[in-house]
Amino acid sequence: MNYCNQCGAKVELRIPEGDTHMRHVCLQCGEIHYLNPKLVIGCVAEWNGSILLCRRAIEPRHGFWTLPAGFMENGESTLEAALRETREEACARVAIDGLFALINIPHISQVHLFYRGRLVGGGHSAGVESLDTSLFGEEAIPWDDLAFRSVALCLKSYFSDRRNGTFGFHEADLLPP
Amino acid sequence: MNYCNQCGAKVELRIPEGDTHMRHVCLQCGEIHYLNPKLVIGCVAEWNGSILLCRRAIEPRHGFWTLPAGFMENGESTLEAALRETREEACARVAIDGLFALINIPHISQVHLFYRGRLVGGGHSAGVESLDTSLFGEEAIPWDDLAFRSVALCLKSYFSDRRNGTFGFHEADLLPP
Repeated sequence: MNYCNQCGAKVELRIPEGDTHMRHVCLQCGEIHYLNPKLVIGCVAEWNGSILLCRRAIEPRHGFWTLPAGFMENGESTLEAALRETREEACARVAIDGLFALINIPHISQVHLFYRGRLVGGGHSAGVESLDTSLFGEEAIPWDDLAFRSVALCLKSYFSDRRNGTFGFHEADLLPP
Repeated sequence: MNYCNQCGAKVELRIPEGDTHMRHVCLQCGEIHYLNPKLVIGCVAEWNGSILLCRRAIEPRHGFWTLPAGFMENGESTLEAALRETREEACARVAIDGLFALINIPHISQVHLFYRGRLVGGGHSAGVESLDTSLFGEEAIPWDDLAFRSVALCLKSYFSDRRNGTFGFHEADLLPP
C-alpha cells in the first residue's frame, strides 16, 4: 500500500497512538488503513458417496483439483458464500448439513471455512473459473493433484469422520510448507 | 474508496471481466480492489462460574459491557487472536477449551467468532481499550448494558449449554435491528 484510498496522498508505516501494530497511516487526512485476514469459504458436497471437485481454470494452481471455495464477499453470510461458490464454480446446488472445518493459514492471512452437505439433484458442470467438475469416491480422490493443502486436510478429516459414522467440527493451523 | 492504494490514481466502480460483483478498479494501473468481510474474534472466559466482561473505553458503544473481542490481525490464527484480545482488553490469560460460536452480521460485513475457556489464575484488569473489567455470574450479567447483540447471543447460548451440561458449536445470523 503506497497511497491513501480516501484522499490519494502518500501513506507511511507507523504505530498509531494507543495501537500495538504498524499500520499504513495517511500523512494528509490521518486515515488509518487496517489490513485484516480474509475468509475463504467452501463446501464438501456429497452425492452417492462421492465428493464434488472442480479443476481450476484460474491461477493460482491452474489445472489442479479443489473443493468449490472462494473469498467471502461483503454483505453475505458464511453459509451464503458456500452456496454461491458451489453454484459459481460447479453450477451445483447443495443442501448444507453443517460447518465442518476451520483452517487457519496465518502466513498468508487467510482463514478457510468448509461446510459439508449433499448435492441436490446430482447435477454439476464447470463454471467460468473451472475447467471441469467431477464426483470422486474416496479411493479416486486425486490427492497428488489437489490445489491446496487446506482442501486435502478437509477431505481427509471428512473421510475419517464418515468412516467413524459421525461428523465433528475440525480446527487446524497450516504452517508454511 | 476514491483512489488506488497502489498508484494513487482515481478508482471507478465497475464489474471486471469474468466477475459478478462491482469492484473498485484503478483506471491507471488496472488494480482491482476487493473488499471482504472482517473477522472479529472473542472469548467467553469463565472463573468460578462467572464470566469475564470488559467495559468499553472506546467507540462504538463506549461505556457498555462486552466480551473481550476485536478484529483479527494479519499473520495470526483465530485462536491467537482470542488470546491476544483477552490479554489486551482485560490483562487476562485464558486456557481455551474450544470454538463456541460463529455469528454472521452480513449488513456490516463482519463474522464474529467466539471461543470458550477458563481464566488462568483469575487475574484481570482494564487494558487501554477498557474502562473496567469484572466477573459476572449468570444472574448478574448486565443484559441491558451489553455493547453488541452478538455478545448477548453468545452469552445466552453459553449459559443454556452450561445448564444442559454440554457445550455445542453455535452458528447464527444477525439481521439489521
